[in-house]
Amino acid sequence: MHKPQPDLPEPAHASVDSMLARKFGREVANYFSGSPLNRLGFLRADHTFLSKALRHPSTRFLLCRDLQPLIRTSEPDALAYVKYEDVKPIIGEDPYAKTEQELIDAYDSKTYVPQMIFLGVDEKDANGLEYTGKNTYKGAPYFAVDVSPKENVKDACEKLIAKVGEQGLDFAKGRVMDIKAADAAIYAAARQLLDWNARNPFCGQCGQPTMSVNGGFKRTCPPKDISYKVSNALPTTISTPANNTERPSCATRKGISNLSFPRTDPTVIMGIVNASGTKILLGRQKRWPPYWYSTLAGFAEPAESIEEAVRREVYEEAGVHVGRVVIHSTQPWPYPANLMIGAVGQATPAGETIDLGHDPELDDARWFDFDEVRHALRVGTSGLDESAGQEYTEGGLRLPPSTAIANQLITSVVNGFVSGEAKM
Amino acid sequence: MHKPQPDLPEPAHASVDSMLARKFGREVANYFSGSPLNRLGFLRADHTFLSKALRHPSTRFLLCRDLQPLIRTSEPDALAYVKYEDVKPIIGEDPYAKTEQELIDAYDSKTYVPQMIFLGVDEKDANGLEYTGKNTYKGAPYFAVDVSPKENVKDACEKLIAKVGEQGLDFAKGRVMDIKAADAAIYAAARQLLDWNARNPFCGQCGQPTMSVNGGFKRTCPPKDISYKVSNALPTTISTPANNTERPSCATRKGISNLSFPRTDPTVIMGIVNASGTKILLGRQKRWPPYWYSTLAGFAEPAESIEEAVRREVYEEAGVHVGRVVIHSTQPWPYPANLMIGAVGQATPAGETIDLGHDPELDDARWFDFDEVRHALRVGTSGLDESAGQEYTEGGLRLPPSTAIANQLITSVVNGFVSGEAKM
Repeated sequence: MHKPQPDLPEPAHASVDSMLARKFGREVANYFSGSPLNRLGFLRADHTFLSKALRHPSTRFLLCRDLQPLIRTSEPDALAYVKYEDVKPIIGEDPYAKTEQELIDAYDSKTYVPQMIFLGVDEKDANGLEYTGKNTYKGAPYFAVDVSPKENVKDACEKLIAKVGEQGLDFAKGRVMDIKAADAAIYAAARQLLDWNARNPFCGQCGQPTMSVNGGFKRTCPPKDISYKVSNALPTTISTPANNTERPSCATRKGISNLSFPRTDPTVIMGIVNASGTKILLGRQKRWPPYWYSTLAGFAEPAESIEEAVRREVYEEAGVHVGRVVIHSTQPWPYPANLMIGAVGQATPAGETIDLGHDPELDDARWFDFDEVRHALRVGTSGLDESAGQEYTEGGLRLPPSTAIANQLITSVVNGFVSGEAKM
Repeated sequence: MHKPQPDLPEPAHASVDSMLARKFGREVANYFSGSPLNRLGFLRADHTFLSKALRHPSTRFLLCRDLQPLIRTSEPDALAYVKYEDVKPIIGEDPYAKTEQELIDAYDSKTYVPQMIFLGVDEKDANGLEYTGKNTYKGAPYFAVDVSPKENVKDACEKLIAKVGEQGLDFAKGRVMDIKAADAAIYAAARQLLDWNARNPFCGQCGQPTMSVNGGFKRTCPPKDISYKVSNALPTTISTPANNTERPSCATRKGISNLSFPRTDPTVIMGIVNASGTKILLGRQKRWPPYWYSTLAGFAEPAESIEEAVRREVYEEAGVHVGRVVIHSTQPWPYPANLMIGAVGQATPAGETIDLGHDPELDDARWFDFDEVRHALRVGTSGLDESAGQEYTEGGLRLPPSTAIANQLITSVVNGFVSGEAKM
């Protein structure tokens, strides 16, 4: 099926006219960016704020089951939300009633706590919570809650899932790429943080279980664990007294450790133009549909600039040598934790020969004339699992949809990013 | 002391003239980028290649003790290297003699293996190793070796440290910011990878010890561990037979998990210009010397674009609302694992009022006239722990040195990035 592509987001403030925008052009806002929420990250450790936010009448809860969001069918689809009374049987009366320090002191690795994420507030909601910390903030709070039925909340989760099902709501299937742009950005944060917490129940530094704090944006390695004596003691230490709940020391408890904070993996994705500015380098993977090509991409490695990562990846995957690299725009990509950094680069005159032999990740890579690409942008864009549009003729080039930064880079390049007067 | 600042690197290929460079200007290459080595990442799992590379006469070993590199005094300082015969007592005859699979099958969490990193090859060395995999590669191989004296190699490390000391070599102290640019890039990769391995001896997913593979660029969670029965069995399972070395299942062993790969934390750093294009926003932290200011900076969060991260951080730290954001250049920063993404943004006309109250990280933030900043760039740049230059007058603005991307952003802004004809 060929689905209509959702609109791209409008980032707050970025559409304001400015000297910078006049010189470099309007900012490209990619799908999964453009969240309407103010994250208020500096209030995540303020349990009084979170406690009030949790129980305010304006508050919305996004349910995720196995990382998939609850959605409502519309044109395009949208996230569906429930209220505090709906999630109370799962999360309890008030998981933020105590301070973080009190919760850390009472840590018990054997107690299952359904993961919650504080996503921020929608300041445009006139009925939102008003809260005064160092300044006064107003908005409708948003939380994500993991309702995967398990452990001591299995029944409560199943009941809520049945209830929302009766209301005609359902959890999305597959990659969520067709809900409206503002909702995609909210979901991206929910998914990436729920997934990060689920992937990191143990401390990479010391191997002990960790606990979620800061509204789901931090995991801490508690110095004590009520269940330590039965669950985690090494055989050589199980002779310690039964009331010894102190765990071995851990380097993450001294100062600030990046292991305590969510991981985001920077990746590069690049539109590479030949030296004369007339062709673009595109590649394809074996598992993609026939004739479907996209820009090259790959993970940035430690201790290289993004510009170097672009040159290295293009060399590794296609054997092409790239000179100047300009960064174009970026896109959050919550599968599972990528930050796509989109760039445009130009091959050196002597470096245009394609060689797939270094790192055989690609099935093919080719230089495409801008005219062929322009035609494909009109008639051949679609998601990987969708058919091309009605105007597409079998055998023609197929390209990713506008929700992919690859499409934005390709469009920018054939519209004169390198060779013409066109701005960024 | 006011030290001379090392030159900035020249990235390979990027200085080649091109349409892209003529339109957007020459690429800014920041300190810690510009490594002269080809990483040949696709050969990291090829033990035959690594084994030959290890023992080739052209091969260089960078020693690191507690993450600090061995250096040689010169103008500026440079990395010092040793030969295979020097490190053999520490790393053994050939740690790459077996395949990775054989090493994983024989995994013993109780055996200390000094961490090594394969950094790449210097293709300009005419006496380098020639190796034919899918293509033929030629160059002098570079490895980093952790020689912190500990465990079973304590004596061997101490002997080698004494030997290089007798040759007048020593390990660097503090942050390494004053060695020549090409060496800084090599060291950045060594430090970041040694540190990542040291921070992640356990699997975040299952809590079991992990092992280093892929020339130090991957950690894998082995399904068996010879010492499992004595070291990691939970009390409920220690009744299993003594020959049961199989560990519980782990999600990182199915498919590809980002937990197996090095972590790099994207950060934003930004030169923010006022709406009329005449002033730049700079801030300072309490622990900095008096009058020392820099651009604002902070970690990107999950599921936001870099452009959004810039707007969020400037709002959080200074209360200023930013419109269009253009990404300028990037800098690897191996303390411990940052990727600095440098951007220029312009405040909205109604959003210029500074408010430090949201997230009180800054001691001060102010709008500075370009003229004052131009003067400070001439007479007041230095590292944080150095005195300003001789021409500096007490009370004047002080700024970071040219090795900091902050300096490059500030320079670009006052030279007309936003308001003039100047290119990127």
